[in-house]
Amino acid sequence: MAAKQKTLNIGMVGYGFMARAHSHAWSEVSHFFDTGYQPVLKAVAARTKANVQGFADAWGYERIETDWRKLIEAPDIDAIDICVPNDLHAEIAIAAARAGKMVLTEKPLARTAKEGKPMVDAVEKAGVPNMVWYNYRRIPAVTFIKNMVDAGKIGKVFHYRAAFLQDWTINPDVPQGGTATWRLDVDAAGSGVTGDLIAHCLDTAMWINGGISSLTAMTETFVKERKHAVTGKMQPVGIDDAAAVLTRFANGSLGTFESTRYARGHKAAYTLEINGEHGSFAWDLHDLHRVSWFDHRVEGPLRGWSSIHVTDGDHPYMGKWWVPGLSVGYGESFTHQVADFLTGLKKKKPAAPTFRDALETNRVCDAIIASGKSGKWIKL
Amino acid sequence: MAAKQKTLNIGMVGYGFMARAHSHAWSEVSHFFDTGYQPVLKAVAARTKANVQGFADAWGYERIETDWRKLIEAPDIDAIDICVPNDLHAEIAIAAARAGKMVLTEKPLARTAKEGKPMVDAVEKAGVPNMVWYNYRRIPAVTFIKNMVDAGKIGKVFHYRAAFLQDWTINPDVPQGGTATWRLDVDAAGSGVTGDLIAHCLDTAMWINGGISSLTAMTETFVKERKHAVTGKMQPVGIDDAAAVLTRFANGSLGTFESTRYARGHKAAYTLEINGEHGSFAWDLHDLHRVSWFDHRVEGPLRGWSSIHVTDGDHPYMGKWWVPGLSVGYGESFTHQVADFLTGLKKKKPAAPTFRDALETNRVCDAIIASGKSGKWIKL
Amino acid sequence: MAAKQKTLNIGMVGYGFMARAHSHAWSEVSHFFDTGYQPVLKAVAARTKANVQGFADAWGYERIETDWRKLIEAPDIDAIDICVPNDLHAEIAIAAARAGKMVLTEKPLARTAKEGKPMVDAVEKAGVPNMVWYNYRRIPAVTFIKNMVDAGKIGKVFHYRAAFLQDWTINPDVPQGGTATWRLDVDAAGSGVTGDLIAHCLDTAMWINGGISSLTAMTETFVKERKHAVTGKMQPVGIDDAAAVLTRFANGSLGTFESTRYARGHKAAYTLEINGEHGSFAWDLHDLHRVSWFDHRVEGPLRGWSSIHVTDGDHPYMGKWWVPGLSVGYGESFTHQVADFLTGLKKKKPAAPTFRDALETNRVCDAIIASGKSGKWIKL
Amino acid sequence: MAAKQKTLNIGMVGYGFMARAHSHAWSEVSHFFDTGYQPVLKAVAARTKANVQGFADAWGYERIETDWRKLIEAPDIDAIDICVPNDLHAEIAIAAARAGKMVLTEKPLARTAKEGKPMVDAVEKAGVPNMVWYNYRRIPAVTFIKNMVDAGKIGKVFHYRAAFLQDWTINPDVPQGGTATWRLDVDAAGSGVTGDLIAHCLDTAMWINGGISSLTAMTETFVKERKHAVTGKMQPVGIDDAAAVLTRFANGSLGTFESTRYARGHKAAYTLEINGEHGSFAWDLHDLHRVSWFDHRVEGPLRGWSSIHVTDGDHPYMGKWWVPGLSVGYGESFTHQVADFLTGLKKKKPAAPTFRDALETNRVCDAIIASGKSGKWIKL
Repeated sequence: MAAKQKTLNIGMVGYGFMARAHSHAWSEVSHFFDTGYQPVLKAVAARTKANVQGFADAWGYERIETDWRKLIEAPDIDAIDICVPNDLHAEIAIAAARAGKMVLTEKPLARTAKEGKPMVDAVEKAGVPNMVWYNYRRIPAVTFIKNMVDAGKIGKVFHYRAAFLQDWTINPDVPQGGTATWRLDVDAAGSGVTGDLIAHCLDTAMWINGGISSLTAMTETFVKERKHAVTGKMQPVGIDDAAAVLTRFANGSLGTFESTRYARGHKAAYTLEINGEHGSFAWDLHDLHRVSWFDHRVEGPLRGWSSIHVTDGDHPYMGKWWVPGLSVGYGESFTHQVADFLTGLKKKKPAAPTFRDALETNRVCDAIIASGKSGKWIKL
Repeated sequence: MAAKQKTLNIGMVGYGFMARAHSHAWSEVSHFFDTGYQPVLKAVAARTKANVQGFADAWGYERIETDWRKLIEAPDIDAIDICVPNDLHAEIAIAAARAGKMVLTEKPLARTAKEGKPMVDAVEKAGVPNMVWYNYRRIPAVTFIKNMVDAGKIGKVFHYRAAFLQDWTINPDVPQGGTATWRLDVDAAGSGVTGDLIAHCLDTAMWINGGISSLTAMTETFVKERKHAVTGKMQPVGIDDAAAVLTRFANGSLGTFESTRYARGHKAAYTLEINGEHGSFAWDLHDLHRVSWFDHRVEGPLRGWSSIHVTDGDHPYMGKWWVPGLSVGYGESFTHQVADFLTGLKKKKPAAPTFRDALETNRVCDAIIASGKSGKWIKL
Repeated sequence: MAAKQKTLNIGMVGYGFMARAHSHAWSEVSHFFDTGYQPVLKAVAARTKANVQGFADAWGYERIETDWRKLIEAPDIDAIDICVPNDLHAEIAIAAARAGKMVLTEKPLARTAKEGKPMVDAVEKAGVPNMVWYNYRRIPAVTFIKNMVDAGKIGKVFHYRAAFLQDWTINPDVPQGGTATWRLDVDAAGSGVTGDLIAHCLDTAMWINGGISSLTAMTETFVKERKHAVTGKMQPVGIDDAAAVLTRFANGSLGTFESTRYARGHKAAYTLEINGEHGSFAWDLHDLHRVSWFDHRVEGPLRGWSSIHVTDGDHPYMGKWWVPGLSVGYGESFTHQVADFLTGLKKKKPAAPTFRDALETNRVCDAIIASGKSGKWIKL
Repeated sequence: MAAKQKTLNIGMVGYGFMARAHSHAWSEVSHFFDTGYQPVLKAVAARTKANVQGFADAWGYERIETDWRKLIEAPDIDAIDICVPNDLHAEIAIAAARAGKMVLTEKPLARTAKEGKPMVDAVEKAGVPNMVWYNYRRIPAVTFIKNMVDAGKIGKVFHYRAAFLQDWTINPDVPQGGTATWRLDVDAAGSGVTGDLIAHCLDTAMWINGGISSLTAMTETFVKERKHAVTGKMQPVGIDDAAAVLTRFANGSLGTFESTRYARGHKAAYTLEINGEHGSFAWDLHDLHRVSWFDHRVEGPLRGWSSIHVTDGDHPYMGKWWVPGLSVGYGESFTHQVADFLTGLKKKKPAAPTFRDALETNRVCDAIIASGKSGKWIKL
């Protein structure tokens, strides 16, 4: 680490998929980004000692805890990073904020806006830096689209559309609840594809295209009962397996959003497209460095959809990595998020999305679930 | 022409884009398909003599008329082919049916289901062969998907989605009304993208995936006033510039449909995708011979989306054309439609979509327009 | 037909795949192109009466002959169109020229340059219009690339590469000789993939990038013996199953050419790419309307490979067809060839490639076969 | 680090692009792979103290040296990792081997086979683990192709083709020599695209498809003189700017290889394709997770080129990373190389490519350069 860097001691809560992604980011960031801070993996907490010890060994955490409250009480921890199921975000985040810790939580902020609101109040009252890990914003191609739209490349916007398609729950034998499949359990997750996947689409959409003013939605649960992973009992499924949404944005453009875990052949097919009067951009997570770009100002017969391979030195974040043509991966979207968070600390300018920003995403998700039930348009 | 073939004398009404497409099909069909019938371009009718004469010369029509009623009265005409704006379909079709002529009309059947119903009644009462030119069904790749879905390749269906995106009316100086731009005039067209473009998507969707039971829609008119091409006066725009629809199909699957003429960079981007438990198919008009196919039964690590180039001898219609790898064009979708119509005549089994089939598409379009106004779900 | 048009009476020799493609073009051209000429399918000749009669019926030829010499003697035939195996091109073409007929022959001009040279002499001595059907030039996307390169869009050229990959002869049970598989018989075809497929690549390459000054080649015959389709006897295979070529163009650029019938999965994969200092173009026959275009002059971060869908009114030939986004097929490349031939007649400016142009392609093919045997570079 | 792991102390020589890539891999490997070893970034050596200190700070190297010999003398260093220009590989590697250190060198092994042979002798005599960083083998998609070919999925091979296209030296103002552009200086690099880029293609090709028995090549230097980055003087350019090669493999298949830095629009376009009797595989570095796969055994009309997104748990290396659909980047190819190297240490089975394996690649490169000059086929 560079001599001039401050250390930032991380207290991680959880050891699952997201804890790995975040730990990777904290470990890697200072190799490529000079933010003024050097994160240190100080401690990790989870209930089962054996599990958390293995995780700590792999990542080099200096110590483990079996109660997250210990992290909050610990004077040597600067920031609490929450990587546990959605139903636990609020309690931990509020406690952390009250203890004066910086707080980062995996998305969504909470299961509902109602649950998330006190979290926002807590971090704002405490005045602590806070962020929600909507990492897809930080994929270089997505950031590039944001920058180009802001630079006026497409002019007035007419349409925004996004989808996040998966296929991993078609098999009705996939259980709900437990460690690996809590996302199918409405109590732990709050909702199904809406909070898990459409939330990502909304975060990106509102960042690029501004707020949503109204929506109507269709939701469906294809498999009505699943066994619970812990109890082994068949239980009704409370989540939305699929959702499709029509929206009107505040800027007058129309939006469509769709997500499902029943689209055979799609693994993590997050796609987005924005159409403006002068041009359009599109992107697909499966080919995450490629941006499709149509520029109507090009000389007529040479107009076409251009595939930009966002790996050049003048593309967002990419000047810090390799050479043109060479890619980064999913993991680096978190690294970029950390880099921006640390830079924000140094500049005293919080990196988005803050808890407040993410609360708005929760509000839209709530409206989707409500409209899915009522069949009515909802104003936001 | 083969000695054993019967002639079928065509009376064409109109000389525009669609009259060219249909004339091409009538001219070409017997070179490649042995249907038992040889179409003959007997006469063409339109109001302006000079225009219709030039058209007749290019296509070899034997004579011209300046009143379509002359075609209907003519004893040497077997079939009336209607290629004029939507508001004229009903009167001509009903008169033709009453005169005992076969009737083919460009899509949609009529401006509304209410207008279309007497057309269905007329052809059914007269017992005359009838067809609506929803030509996209007959693109080999689309027919192939239909056949494969019918053969059970994808099993239970969860999702169907389609879009038809264009960008040609973004410029507010494009007029409405007149010969070239009657599709922007609600009186002539009945609706905007709904009747023009979503109608195509619906025809294909209901053919492949069965009936639609309910829907909700969002419609928008981005440019509120346009000059009229004939009068030169600014007039309110009555059509829908864009529409997005959420549907439930009778088979329990969910559908999304979207169309717009404000999606910069898209010329005629008709895309569709269907997801079932065992597999998925997708297609894009811009690459009309390619079907994307995901087969979940493939050995795990080798699973992927396959791009089938639908140009082999065992693909629909393609055995009649060239050799594998070599394509046909948009025009040939009409040729296939004619081939099926003529084969249907011979076999006394009407080729779909008949007037009755197409009426159902009109009913769904009407519901889209109505829901776009009311914001409510509509049962069909 | 328009009153002002001259008729052009066609005498077709052959009734196979190419005779269908040419007949389609002659039939279709005047529906879409106003060239001043109206082709008439006057007569078709082939040895077996039953076969040729069926062909004549399907296409509307006015009469049949069982000896091609009858066509040449016939005073009512204006142009002889040669659609028979390569070994018969020379005799027919020379006789036709001597009789003062226009002559068009399917490619290649002849089996070798030595055989083709007297054909050039004959048509030039007779002063008759002549053309070889290298149809791929007339695919709108290919013509577009030619026009853009001529317009200086890519500047100095560094590289040209082309390939034509197929897989239909991997099965060693495919016979050689006979009607359907004469292309595998060296006596009828002259060579294998070189004359059949690389010849197309060379015609396009030299049209776009100028002459080839030297080359070295590798050729291979994977299946050494095949049954003869007529005699049923196993015979040595004399053709090249695969060929790969390194070339230097006269303009200093480097070229690579490859063709094979053993590339599993490729049906008719003719691909080409040209790289210049300011930009590059690429194309693939399987997606025949798409041109890939890279423009280095675009603002840095927005640079990418653009996919131009060559279907607009300002793209070559496309203004005569449908509307943007809607395609033509393989057959229309021949229609465009006919349109250019007829326009050339009217303007007294022969449409390329003439016999003389095509002789140059034969010369390069001869060098490939020779270098494949000697392993040495050959100067042209 | 897990308690049971051995440490492996790394001595890095160099601080440039490759030193970053390797340091990233050494840092990251034990977070995702349980190899039994924990690499420790012990020391880094380079001539200029300020440069090497900054590098050491960013990556956490424990100390720096300004003479690589110090690393070789240091008793606490286990492995020497060589990341300096090609002309320095031999001296350092031989010294390291003699000192009993493990040796890893960036590719190519040496400038020529003649220079590389004593390196092979040295590591083999010393009996030290050794490896050359041909990292592209370890991209999951490439490893997957290797595994599938070995498993017999494509049967007998007919064709192998590879290209590595770039465009960064078209500008004649790019200098040669110095720190950033030593790859254009023949004294430092040994050759141009052949040793830099075709070497990668050859390493993969021979790994998947076996040895090359003969070849002929065309090489070219488009820009004949460039300024030297250090001296500022114009000097003749000694490297090959472009090379194209025809090969015969020992298994009877044909190969083509091409590389250039003058293919406008290509950044790092390493592509490969292999065609066998039952199927084909293809890959492109720009979309590094996608494998194209054609399976001829698929039911006829459903055959197509499948795009496998190599991100599943049963794909090579990917079970250690995220979830299906989520990617890794270029950097992880080095991480996988390290993981295999460390696993090889534990199992006492050296990870390929060893110095001996890489010497063969140097031999083929030498033949390309020689044939480029002589124009003759060369047997290997």
